[in-house]
Amino acid sequence: MNRSPNPFLVSALTEESPVVKTKEILSWIDQRRSAHRFVVEPIPFSEMKEWGFEPDTGNITHSSGKFFTIHGVHIETNGGPVTSWSQPIIKQPEIGILGIAVKKMGGVLHFLMQAKMEPGNIHLVQLAPTLQATRSNFTRVHHGRSPLLLDYFSTGEKSRSLVDVLQSEQGARFLRKRNRNMIVEVTDDIPVSDDYCWMTLGQIQRLLYQDNLINMDARTVLSCISYRAPEADAGTADLAFLESALPERDFRRRLIESTMDRDKALHRFNEIIGWFTRMKVRYELEVTPVPLNRVAGWHRTTTEIVHEQGKYFSIMAVRVQADNREVVAWTQPLVRPREEGLVAFIVKEINGVLHVLIQAKVEPGNFDVVEMAPTVQCITGSYRQAPLECRPCFLDHVLNAPQESIRYSARQSEEGGRFFRESNHNQVVEVGDEFPVDVPANFIWMTLGQLKTFIMFNNFVNVECRCLMASMGLA
Amino acid sequence: MNRSPNPFLVSALTEESPVVKTKEILSWIDQRRSAHRFVVEPIPFSEMKEWGFEPDTGNITHSSGKFFTIHGVHIETNGGPVTSWSQPIIKQPEIGILGIAVKKMGGVLHFLMQAKMEPGNIHLVQLAPTLQATRSNFTRVHHGRSPLLLDYFSTGEKSRSLVDVLQSEQGARFLRKRNRNMIVEVTDDIPVSDDYCWMTLGQIQRLLYQDNLINMDARTVLSCISYRAPEADAGTADLAFLESALPERDFRRRLIESTMDRDKALHRFNEIIGWFTRMKVRYELEVTPVPLNRVAGWHRTTTEIVHEQGKYFSIMAVRVQADNREVVAWTQPLVRPREEGLVAFIVKEINGVLHVLIQAKVEPGNFDVVEMAPTVQCITGSYRQAPLECRPCFLDHVLNAPQESIRYSARQSEEGGRFFRESNHNQVVEVGDEFPVDVPANFIWMTLGQLKTFIMFNNFVNVECRCLMASMGLA
Repeated sequence: MNRSPNPFLVSALTEESPVVKTKEILSWIDQRRSAHRFVVEPIPFSEMKEWGFEPDTGNITHSSGKFFTIHGVHIETNGGPVTSWSQPIIKQPEIGILGIAVKKMGGVLHFLMQAKMEPGNIHLVQLAPTLQATRSNFTRVHHGRSPLLLDYFSTGEKSRSLVDVLQSEQGARFLRKRNRNMIVEVTDDIPVSDDYCWMTLGQIQRLLYQDNLINMDARTVLSCISYRAPEADAGTADLAFLESALPERDFRRRLIESTMDRDKALHRFNEIIGWFTRMKVRYELEVTPVPLNRVAGWHRTTTEIVHEQGKYFSIMAVRVQADNREVVAWTQPLVRPREEGLVAFIVKEINGVLHVLIQAKVEPGNFDVVEMAPTVQCITGSYRQAPLECRPCFLDHVLNAPQESIRYSARQSEEGGRFFRESNHNQVVEVGDEFPVDVPANFIWMTLGQLKTFIMFNNFVNVECRCLMASMGLA
Repeated sequence: MNRSPNPFLVSALTEESPVVKTKEILSWIDQRRSAHRFVVEPIPFSEMKEWGFEPDTGNITHSSGKFFTIHGVHIETNGGPVTSWSQPIIKQPEIGILGIAVKKMGGVLHFLMQAKMEPGNIHLVQLAPTLQATRSNFTRVHHGRSPLLLDYFSTGEKSRSLVDVLQSEQGARFLRKRNRNMIVEVTDDIPVSDDYCWMTLGQIQRLLYQDNLINMDARTVLSCISYRAPEADAGTADLAFLESALPERDFRRRLIESTMDRDKALHRFNEIIGWFTRMKVRYELEVTPVPLNRVAGWHRTTTEIVHEQGKYFSIMAVRVQADNREVVAWTQPLVRPREEGLVAFIVKEINGVLHVLIQAKVEPGNFDVVEMAPTVQCITGSYRQAPLECRPCFLDHVLNAPQESIRYSARQSEEGGRFFRESNHNQVVEVGDEFPVDVPANFIWMTLGQLKTFIMFNNFVNVECRCLMASMGLA
C-alpha cells in the first residue's frame, strides 16, 4: 500500500511556493489586466456579427451552427412551489475541456493558472484553468488560433491524467451542459506566456477568500481533487503534518478531517444513494423545448430579452476586443442576472466530524431530474420581502447567521463567457446543538469525504455545490 | 469499526438453509408450475384488447396511455461498424420497483423469492424478486389487485432499506428505461402464499447454474449486493470463513477475493473514470424518435412487425390467462428475438487477483451514450458466418474457448413481461498468460470489487453485465 503523502494534500498545505510568493501572484494579475487591451460594450442585437435570430423560432444561433444556441423551454415539475413556467435556456451539447496542468516543483505540486479575459468577467481578467476550451474552440470553428497547450490534455502522451470526469453546469441556465474537468501532471518545461503562472493549491485556496478572482471553471476543476482515493487508506501521517503546519486554521483542519474519516459519517453510502433514488422517483421534471419567440412571459426589445416583471435574468449582446485571445474581436450574446443570488452550506459537527447539509434540487437543465445542491441555492432579491412560508428552507438561518458562526464568505463569479458580471454570495455557516439533526426529506447530512466521492462519479453534485466546496478551502 | 461479518456474505456462503433444502426449492417450483393455470397464445394484432396502433404513427399504445409504448427510433452513431439504422424500441418512462425482502432466520439472511409467471418466460414460471411492479401496476391502472407486499418497499416503516438504486435495462430494446433495484430487511412474519419461498443467497447462486430459472429482475437486484461497502474495511475473518466453508469452490473464492481486494487492481478508480470519460467524449449517439409505421427496413403483417431480412427481433402479440396475477386475463405485445445471443466475460488473473475485461458499449437506449458492458455482448447468429474482421472483439476467444477454461456456462432469460422466450448464452472464460494485458482502447480490466462499486453509483454498468456478475456466483 502506498503510504507516501498524497501530493494534492501536500500542495494544499503549502501556502507559500518555492517558485512564487502569493503577493507576487496578486501583482502579476494586476499587471496582466493592464498588459492587454480589452473592451467589452453592450450592443443592440442588430449589431451582432455571425450571431442572429432564426427567422421562425427567434432562437439565437451562430452562423456555423456551433458554440451554443439560446432557445426556450417549458417546464412542468413537482420540485418546488412553482410547478409550471417557461424560460430561455442555453443549449450547448458540445463537451468542452476545463483543464489544469500540474507539475512538481521543489517537491510540491504546482498548478498552472491562466490570467484569462472573459467578456462577462467582473474586473475582466480572472484566474482560470490552464486550458478552457469548447469543442468549437479546439476544432477552430472560429478560424482563430488553436488553444494553447491543448496537446497536454488531448493525447495522453505528454502528460499523466490525474482527474478526467464529466461535470454538469448550471441547471437553471444550461440544458444538460457538461464539461470534462481535467487535471494532468506534466514533467516537461511547458513554454508559457506571461499570462500563465505556477502556484500551489494552498495559494489558490488563499486567493479563494477574495471576491471574484478565481473563475468558475477553475473552481469546478479544483473541486474534483481527492485527498483520498476510495481504494486507498487515508494517510494518517498527512493529517499530523497538516495539524503542525496549520495550527491556526482550525476550520480547514476539520474540513480536511471530514474528507478523510470513513467511520463517523451519520449515513452510510448505501443510505445516501437510497435517499437520492427516492428523490429521483419523487420528483418529476418535464422539459419541452419551445421557440425563443414564444416563451410565455418573456419579450424581446432591440437590446435584450427580458421577463415581463424584470425578474430572474435577461439576454443581451456585447462587442468584445481582446488582443490576446484566439480571435481578437467578436460579438456574442450573454445572460445577465437581474437579482442577487446566494449559495450557502450549513455545516454541523456530528459524531465529532463536520457534516454538510445537502439538498436534492430539481433544476430544468439537470441531466437526471435532481442533483445534490448546497443547503441554500436561490435568488435572494425576491425572497427578502416574501412571507416566511414561501422562502426556501434554511434561507433565514443563513441570512441571520451570527458573525461568529460564518466560516466562509465571499462573492464568486459565474462563467464570464456566458454570464455578464454574475456574482453570487458564497457562504458557509456552522451551526451547533440548537440545530436539529433531523431535516426535511429532501435534505441529508454528509461528510465532505462522502461528497467528494459523489463528485468522482459525476452528475451527482451540481456546479454550485462543487464550487462552494472549492471556495471554502476544500479544493 | 464494525467488524461483524457482512450478513450478505454469510448468506452467500450458506448453501443449505436451516429453513428449506435446495432440492425442496426445485420441487416447490415444479409444484407452482402445475398449481396454477397459465395459458399464453400468440394472437393477431387485431385481437389485442386495450392495446392498439395509434392511427397516425402506428405506435403501439395502451388505452390508458400507461404501461409502455412501442415506437421507432433512427440512430446515428460512430460507436460500431454500423453507423446508421432504424428500429422499433420500447418506451417505458415509468420507474418501477424490483425488490427483494430479506430476513434473518437461524442467524442467516434469507431472501424471499417468488415463483412468478410471465407470458414470455421459458417454462412460464421462473424465480422472481419478492416484488416486481411497474408504477402502473402499483397505481392499479389495470384495475386489478394491488401488488402483494408493496408496503414493505414503499413506506420505509415496515422494513430497513439495504439497497435502493436506479439501474438501466437493455439499451438495445428500451429507450432509457430504469427500475429501482431494492433490497429491504424485514423482521415481521410476512404473510405469504405458496408462491413465495425463503432461501439463502448461496442457494440462489446454486440455482443460477441452471438454465432459465432465476429471472432477469432477480439477477439485476442480486447484482447490487456489496460484500464490502466502500467506507468499511473488508472483513478478513469473512474470507477465512469462506475458504473453510467452500474448499472445493476455488473459482468462487477467487471471485469474492476480487471483490474485496483494494490494492492489487491494475487501474485505480480515477483511471477507470478517466477511461469512461474518454469513451463518452469519443462516441456520439443521436437518437431521433420516428413513428413505428415509418421505421425504415421494418414492416407490419397481421401478426408481427419484422425486419425485412428477418433479423434481430420482431414485435408480436399474445393472449394470457393466469389465475394468480393481479389481472386474470389480458393481451399484450411482446418482443420476440430472431437470433441467439451471447453475453460473456473474459477473466484473467493480474497481480494475483481476478480481473474482468469490460467494454464501453454504445446502445441506442442508453441514458448517457455508453455503459460498461461484458467483454462480448452480441447476437451470434449473424456473426458465425461473418468474416473475421467484422466480428465483435474477442467473440472467437469465447466461442473457441477450451472446455477447461470455462468457469460458468448457462442460458439465462430476459424479462418475460416484455420478451418472448428470449434466452442468451451466459459464459465466463478464464484466460492465462497467452492473453495480453494490453487491450483495445474501448476495453479495460477491472477487479470485481471495482465493478461492484460502479454498480452502486448507477448508470455505469449495463444490465447484461450486472446479470452476468450475479449469474457467475457473484450476486
